[in-house]
Amino acid sequence: MSPNDGTVAETGEFALIRAVTEGRRQPPGTLLGPGDDAAVVAAPDGRVVAGTDVLVQGVHFRLDWSTPEHVGRKAVAVNLADIAAMGATPTTVLVGLACPPDTPREVVIGLADGMWAEAERAGVGVSGGDMVRADQLVISVTALGDLGDREPVTRSGARPGDVVAVNGRLGWAAAGLAVLGRGFRSPVGVVNAQRCPEPPYEAGPRAALAGATAMIDVSDGLLADLGHIGEASSVGIDVRTGDLDIPARLTEVGAALGADPLDWVLTGGEDHALAATFPPFTELPDGWRVIGVVTMPESGITVDGKPFSREAGWTHWR
Amino acid sequence: MSPNDGTVAETGEFALIRAVTEGRRQPPGTLLGPGDDAAVVAAPDGRVVAGTDVLVQGVHFRLDWSTPEHVGRKAVAVNLADIAAMGATPTTVLVGLACPPDTPREVVIGLADGMWAEAERAGVGVSGGDMVRADQLVISVTALGDLGDREPVTRSGARPGDVVAVNGRLGWAAAGLAVLGRGFRSPVGVVNAQRCPEPPYEAGPRAALAGATAMIDVSDGLLADLGHIGEASSVGIDVRTGDLDIPARLTEVGAALGADPLDWVLTGGEDHALAATFPPFTELPDGWRVIGVVTMPESGITVDGKPFSREAGWTHWR
Repeated sequence: MSPNDGTVAETGEFALIRAVTEGRRQPPGTLLGPGDDAAVVAAPDGRVVAGTDVLVQGVHFRLDWSTPEHVGRKAVAVNLADIAAMGATPTTVLVGLACPPDTPREVVIGLADGMWAEAERAGVGVSGGDMVRADQLVISVTALGDLGDREPVTRSGARPGDVVAVNGRLGWAAAGLAVLGRGFRSPVGVVNAQRCPEPPYEAGPRAALAGATAMIDVSDGLLADLGHIGEASSVGIDVRTGDLDIPARLTEVGAALGADPLDWVLTGGEDHALAATFPPFTELPDGWRVIGVVTMPESGITVDGKPFSREAGWTHWR
Repeated sequence: MSPNDGTVAETGEFALIRAVTEGRRQPPGTLLGPGDDAAVVAAPDGRVVAGTDVLVQGVHFRLDWSTPEHVGRKAVAVNLADIAAMGATPTTVLVGLACPPDTPREVVIGLADGMWAEAERAGVGVSGGDMVRADQLVISVTALGDLGDREPVTRSGARPGDVVAVNGRLGWAAAGLAVLGRGFRSPVGVVNAQRCPEPPYEAGPRAALAGATAMIDVSDGLLADLGHIGEASSVGIDVRTGDLDIPARLTEVGAALGADPLDWVLTGGEDHALAATFPPFTELPDGWRVIGVVTMPESGITVDGKPFSREAGWTHWR
């Protein structure tokens, strides 16, 4: 029997915990890793940034569309993106995994491999967690981060006249979802973007250093998430489509599927780009591109000065 | 329609988040609470203690046995107990909630009320979280804590000759489970103990200050959890039944159900008492009572000097 054979029930809780924790290399900031009642992680700033996201099989991922590694990476990435969006540097992640007893052990190992791969991409490790039985695969990740003596960048600091900029991909995951939904598995670029985002973690702290007044990670869709900034900051935001980068790949996929790639860029979620506002004339750090301006609150969220009429982002349960 | 009517799907994600967060009072250590990409919490020690536990409906709780308030309290309590078992003081909790769309809104409000009640009992608040759709109610809680310049108390520091002491209730939740399993709803003392533990949070930091060499919270059962200390510390542990407090209430319930209350005390989980080892002759802080001694590793976990033969604690999936 290969080490990956069998179900989690056959493997047993403690052997499974060993299988997903042993041989992993914790970064120096993990002062005490898995195996005790709780982990101990460095918090040099004296404050800790903390966020939790839950991913549910069939709602946030499908194992017939994604490998366990993709899902593990995604579960960690969406959480680390929240830390980056506060202007903080990730320090660790903790994982709660609920899965059916007949889940193949190799699925759990694959999830753990993906989680570790993404954590390492951000310079952190998985310092703790819990594994329990459930009817459905549910992955809960908590990510912690350090502010490095900077103030957190919230959603509420945008001011009229600020520029709006983004860093990272927009519309790719939505294009991938459209492709997968038609039963295709390519082009692999957009399909993989749907399977797992690639948030630009370092762009968050750099934006904070450059003076970002508000920031958010684009999880629900650009217009929806700019709407969150608009609401929290009591401002309007105008997106200028002429400044949006529509990659050739999205244009091609849109043409093939009869869809407008601009829709994906404006309303597609799950890419976890960062969107931020900066004072006018700020010299933006590398990778940030201006796509609009902060306007007066009564303007609301507009596209090229006009209200956007299509469904802007999604909410759960609806 | 009363404010608590309807399902979570009818209420909608954002309205539901408002309903469970608005009007709650965060402690001063919550520097930025719910509503942004992540929370910011004080970590004055420069290190943060962090643990995650996941509770699943039908596995860890039953809503026909417990109210949503009980379940919410329990979900927070089991996590805060882990923080206390490191010798740390809780600073905050974050909550991931996955629930079916037809979950009554009042269930979610009840869960939140219970979570807040237990968090406040420990002097903290719920600083963040996530709510998503799933087929089954799954509650993931992450608790953070501060070490107050003390070293964490791990499972691995016990030495032969140390005394073993406990703080908090043992066997109560197991007795309650036996009562509920027979279809009874009383005596309410043991039934409520099963519905929600009452971990002695302050006992953890006090034990650390008194020089505890190892500590754990009793979640799987006294012998099972002392086994975790024994394994991590490479020691044996002998429990002396003559030193175990068998409350009259457990004796009564045992007599009524034809069960031996000592079994509940030795192997019953879910009470989340704290168990710790201290150097010999340590003056123990209030509420700690000696129940055994640390022995040589070859002795293993024994009761009155003899191996214990019954199933000692439980693991998931088996």
